[in-house]
Amino acid sequence: MVSTPFGTPLETDALVVGAGPVGLFQVFQLGLHAVHTHVIDTLPYAGGQCMELYPDKPIYDIPALTVCTGRELTERLLQQITPFEPRFHFNQHVSSVQAQADGRWLVATSKGRQFLTKTLFIAAGVGAFLPRTLKVAALEPFEGSQMHYRINNPGDFADKQVLIVGSDDAAVQHALALCAAHIDGNPYKARSVTLLHRRDALQADPVALATLRTLCDAGHMEFVVGQITGHDEQQGHLNALRITTVDGTERTLPTDALLVLQGLSPKLGPIAEWGLAMERKQLQVSTETFATSAPGIFAVGDINTYPGKKKLIVCGFHECVLAAFAAMAVIAPNTKVPLEYTTSSARLHALLGVTPSTHNA
Amino acid sequence: MVSTPFGTPLETDALVVGAGPVGLFQVFQLGLHAVHTHVIDTLPYAGGQCMELYPDKPIYDIPALTVCTGRELTERLLQQITPFEPRFHFNQHVSSVQAQADGRWLVATSKGRQFLTKTLFIAAGVGAFLPRTLKVAALEPFEGSQMHYRINNPGDFADKQVLIVGSDDAAVQHALALCAAHIDGNPYKARSVTLLHRRDALQADPVALATLRTLCDAGHMEFVVGQITGHDEQQGHLNALRITTVDGTERTLPTDALLVLQGLSPKLGPIAEWGLAMERKQLQVSTETFATSAPGIFAVGDINTYPGKKKLIVCGFHECVLAAFAAMAVIAPNTKVPLEYTTSSARLHALLGVTPSTHNA
Repeated sequence: MVSTPFGTPLETDALVVGAGPVGLFQVFQLGLHAVHTHVIDTLPYAGGQCMELYPDKPIYDIPALTVCTGRELTERLLQQITPFEPRFHFNQHVSSVQAQADGRWLVATSKGRQFLTKTLFIAAGVGAFLPRTLKVAALEPFEGSQMHYRINNPGDFADKQVLIVGSDDAAVQHALALCAAHIDGNPYKARSVTLLHRRDALQADPVALATLRTLCDAGHMEFVVGQITGHDEQQGHLNALRITTVDGTERTLPTDALLVLQGLSPKLGPIAEWGLAMERKQLQVSTETFATSAPGIFAVGDINTYPGKKKLIVCGFHECVLAAFAAMAVIAPNTKVPLEYTTSSARLHALLGVTPSTHNA
Repeated sequence: MVSTPFGTPLETDALVVGAGPVGLFQVFQLGLHAVHTHVIDTLPYAGGQCMELYPDKPIYDIPALTVCTGRELTERLLQQITPFEPRFHFNQHVSSVQAQADGRWLVATSKGRQFLTKTLFIAAGVGAFLPRTLKVAALEPFEGSQMHYRINNPGDFADKQVLIVGSDDAAVQHALALCAAHIDGNPYKARSVTLLHRRDALQADPVALATLRTLCDAGHMEFVVGQITGHDEQQGHLNALRITTVDGTERTLPTDALLVLQGLSPKLGPIAEWGLAMERKQLQVSTETFATSAPGIFAVGDINTYPGKKKLIVCGFHECVLAAFAAMAVIAPNTKVPLEYTTSSARLHALLGVTPSTHNA
């Protein structure tokens, strides 16, 4: 993981954790109150579960959208919040949240970015999508040195004997990329590339799979069916992995670098440790304000719970509305916050950057 | 008002009062539970306030619809509920609601239709859109005989001296229609037609206004600027109206029939008399179920109130979801009602009549 120096925290009125549909609509509702937002997400793009789990599957129960895919819903919400110019901070999760003496919250992310915010909106759905970990306890000490869950620095693999664990597009594509040096002189070429999966079935793009087969047949890389059952190390340095193959035989694969690409899995992660009132891994909120038990921290969408809660996007949208109104008491105390309508309010039209015609049919 | 005989009440699981956007989405949410609905509205079409007050004005805060008009929102929701085939009963309001011994509700409308329903969803917004009444107490006894708020039977005006009160398209068009007989032999021709408005400004289609001017110039009808300040009657029969014109003079206009077309105005109407718990003319509901104080009667959208309530369409949509789930305990007690997703549930796909591809990108 690349770390940047902490530096001065970014000061903001509102920080939204989670760029899924509900997080995006939270940005919109805050925007209608003239509040600018920063948004953090573990994924490299907006959309959350909608983009990660069903980008191309049709959704039928978004009001007034008879059918739309997860990707289309995300694109529509991104278009809707354009006037409010949210600032996205992708590829990182919140690593700590600390109350400050002035009532604000100091929030740090896994990339070392810091925010000093008046309000925090947790729209983290089922949790952050984090890489599925390798369940081999003996290898945990190598995480960050010789075992990686993503490629942050391709140089980490240059001239190394690399074992990639995985079966999907990401695993296959990374295997091909690290192997490509065998063909066209990649400066980050691995000395050897082995792809390991527990079954003889890879779920990836047919062209990539054909390329992989060609490279294996030509001896440029190897695909092994089996599981890691042991390792060899010397003075804290990983030298080899022991693989038990499907027929029960054991092989030893010399290995300098282990790249685990088993997909992403949602994890509530550090949120569980923030000291907020919870019930069955959900954050308890008021149905009046969608505030958690901590002042200035709100929770919207699938991550919250209250009597009657249904984990549906349309419910999250409503929660954003009430949370935004309630947050104004923190962001701008003693200011009256009227309910205005986007059909008629000149103030909202200015914020949205629109000039609706005054035509009455 | 035309009355039809009561006959046998229609038996139904769910009756929705109000065909505005929230009423329509209530139909959708009940449809996802395989519940068929009947819908009552005072207007002659779906859309409620959206169609009546701002059909062509842009709305900007419906999630994932950057901009849409009231008409477009209505059309989109009507399209979305098509698979559930709701049955609409327009041009009527609920006139009575009576609890039955078996827990159901007997609901009667102003057109004499009756329903025996397990659940009732009040989605009546700011109330029923009823004709704005003429504030002349002395004329109230003539309502339904010589004073009308709509034309139910054109024969009521045949060969009559008609005074129309109003200034909008409806008033002008009705004046032209009743006068048209002077030109082409309408069997319902009025003997005379006078249009009365308190100011010398009519808000109607330019072509209709030009026609009106031509007819006035030719002596086929008259436009009078003034207000009704008295009347003459003989043995309970209205003979004439006394009009005070803008210059303060008084005129007597022989009148057999008075047609008041001053537009529609929302009225909570009889709902206020159903004995439900209310707060400032709003129905109090639980945020867990959106049930009112009466078992089986739910309230969604602008007509309800609860701590934090914001009168926004997006909030009404959420309320429909929870009300539909809660209603299932009344409609199908002892049946488990799982939360399923329209992206993945074969049961929901069958109800929606869709066969999504199983393509995974």
